Amino acid sequence: MSATPQGSPATLPLAGLKVLELGHYIAAPFATRLLADLGAEVIKVEPPEGDPVRGWGSQVDGHAVWFSVHGRNKLSVTLDLKSADGKAKLRRLAARADALVENFRPGQLERYGLGPADLHQVNPRLVIARISGYGQDGPYRDKPAFGAIGEAMGGLRHLTASPGQTEHPPPRCGVSISDDLAGMYAAMGLVAACWQVKGDPAAKGRVIDVDLVGSVFSLMEGMLPEYGLFGWVRQPQGAAIKTAAPTNTYPCADGKWLCIAGNSDLIFRRLMAAIGRPELADEPRFANNAARCENVAELDAAIAAWTRTKTGAEAESILDAAEVPCSRLYDMRDCAEDPHFRARGLVLPVQDPLLGEVLHPAAPFRFDGVSAREMVRWTGPAAGAHNDHVFLELLKEPAE
Amino acid sequence: MSATPQGSPATLPLAGLKVLELGHYIAAPFATRLLADLGAEVIKVEPPEGDPVRGWGSQVDGHAVWFSVHGRNKLSVTLDLKSADGKAKLRRLAARADALVENFRPGQLERYGLGPADLHQVNPRLVIARISGYGQDGPYRDKPAFGAIGEAMGGLRHLTASPGQTEHPPPRCGVSISDDLAGMYAAMGLVAACWQVKGDPAAKGRVIDVDLVGSVFSLMEGMLPEYGLFGWVRQPQGAAIKTAAPTNTYPCADGKWLCIAGNSDLIFRRLMAAIGRPELADEPRFANNAARCENVAELDAAIAAWTRTKTGAEAESILDAAEVPCSRLYDMRDCAEDPHFRARGLVLPVQDPLLGEVLHPAAPFRFDGVSAREMVRWTGPAAGAHNDHVFLELLKEPAE
Repeated sequence: MSATPQGSPATLPLAGLKVLELGHYIAAPFATRLLADLGAEVIKVEPPEGDPVRGWGSQVDGHAVWFSVHGRNKLSVTLDLKSADGKAKLRRLAARADALVENFRPGQLERYGLGPADLHQVNPRLVIARISGYGQDGPYRDKPAFGAIGEAMGGLRHLTASPGQTEHPPPRCGVSISDDLAGMYAAMGLVAACWQVKGDPAAKGRVIDVDLVGSVFSLMEGMLPEYGLFGWVRQPQGAAIKTAAPTNTYPCADGKWLCIAGNSDLIFRRLMAAIGRPELADEPRFANNAARCENVAELDAAIAAWTRTKTGAEAESILDAAEVPCSRLYDMRDCAEDPHFRARGLVLPVQDPLLGEVLHPAAPFRFDGVSAREMVRWTGPAAGAHNDHVFLELLKEPAE
Repeated sequence: MSATPQGSPATLPLAGLKVLELGHYIAAPFATRLLADLGAEVIKVEPPEGDPVRGWGSQVDGHAVWFSVHGRNKLSVTLDLKSADGKAKLRRLAARADALVENFRPGQLERYGLGPADLHQVNPRLVIARISGYGQDGPYRDKPAFGAIGEAMGGLRHLTASPGQTEHPPPRCGVSISDDLAGMYAAMGLVAACWQVKGDPAAKGRVIDVDLVGSVFSLMEGMLPEYGLFGWVRQPQGAAIKTAAPTNTYPCADGKWLCIAGNSDLIFRRLMAAIGRPELADEPRFANNAARCENVAELDAAIAAWTRTKTGAEAESILDAAEVPCSRLYDMRDCAEDPHFRARGLVLPVQDPLLGEVLHPAAPFRFDGVSAREMVRWTGPAAGAHNDHVFLELLKEPAE
């Protein structure tokens, strides 16, 4: 695996698309990482000291382990956007780009003299995707934003909880989900706007406004219309789903949890046989999903009484054989060692020149004719690793 | 708000893109809903009895409330894909489309004689996005898939928990996150492939393979490389973040929870002043983030002692004034009534011909020159509502 950028294989769908990243931390860099996986040329513009996300998490020889993934398939250049030279270079990069992604606080790019109006002067076709906590307008625009706040205000964190559970606060879902979602929406909106511009000589670049709160809020299913029509306010349901039974997560003998989706009539029958309680499938109070929802506590107790006697892997294997959908709650070892993950190329050992051999998760989309491995072209580079390549070759200008 | 389809305003980025949906339940319909919000013409192909998701959740006069949002901006036609006539119509629709999204179980489309090879015979440029639980290949390909299993196997559900909490199972994050993520990736990959095809007369359509497990797994940050390098297995951290303090969720007097992100040095000082403990900001054991992480229990206790004396709204208002990032865990009422949500158009009252006035969440991306309201063109239609429009007008063929 080379740290030297090659052009993308033409088989990748976004080969030839030129994207600038003015990003830091998670949301904008995640957006451009997805675009880079898809084959776009992504130039990540960092301050001279590097994106502060490079200081996060474990390090090897001063290089962040996560950045091997988070920065992969990108070119990194360093620029001081406060300096005249940095601004001039950024404008030249914008002039040759198709799109730009940024996640400064609203107004910051304008204060640099690099807002959409400025950038559209040097490149009227530039598509600009902006990610912020609360959006580019509205009363909360200038509040400081954090991923956790996006989850809380967007409605997700209220739901990530068990009913009546007051001892522990509702947990995070464990990852920076609001940043991830906003990055995904920004990438999607950006490609859509590039589709619109492509092939139309008269088309102008667009400005796209994506925010963490709205991104989370977009996943709230039917809850908003139900609130509007009936005044209902969805409450946390723990690991169960009120309208389907039995579907829940059950404790195993080794401390593992097993998630079981056994709510269709046929699967329910197989599940009851597998746990040694076939007679329950014949009882009228469990005859259909609606009846089972009414009497779910008794069913959950019967299933848990069985899972508690098995390890997670044993219980999973028995239910697999009975064709009952289930899964242990995989931890990272389970994922990394799973034969399906390996067969699908979801876990890719790659050589990182900064870290040695590193496991990378695959790109989350597969295209015919492109292997998972071909979508990881190089690993996250050191800050400024491509200054010469970009400033000397791509911009064809003398070095400073 | 009309139930009659108009073409998209040309201001929407995907105006002119023609997409077929062979979807049911959540993942594929969510992908096409996002594409429809972006301006694509989406024709949802349903079986004669309708997408089974129409039976989910609350109903008004037999019409699902959620479907007003889930099916918005789409045309609905009904076809029996088992019949010769249904297959023939589907092929004619595919011939005029740019892209298709499906989430049948792997192999089902092929069994209908409508797999990618068949569809590319009638339209070699068709982009086909396929969503499934485990992907189109690999040893688990044929297992039945459910959203909950995608979360569990992708590594998310293990993390959505509080450390040492064994009484309740780890909760769902409260929404069908694995379906949503897979839908988002499918939409993103589809638009990228359409960008590639556009303007290149020689280009062929692509087949895109997105799965629930891999979509969830893509959000696992640096956990996979850290497992590979060090053997570390990330464990649940509850509402806290191990490397930042104080940042957590605290109980309030009215049973509400307040999420506070107070881990930067300046914000920490303001937070301690706001809770009446300014002296803590001067103590060496809380002097910087690393020190605070070591002594986080004491800080969390001091903050909780204060939040317990206030309602969620009171505590939030005091910390807002002190410029400390925080948010109550918003429930749907909080979202729907929030002035920022209303100002940004995140909560849109729209007229649904089937349901009356309904609140819709905005599209999760905003484009310059297009209001949030303009992106909701019509509400989810009844199954087959556009049979005549599509089969008589778009296909210019006699009715059955």
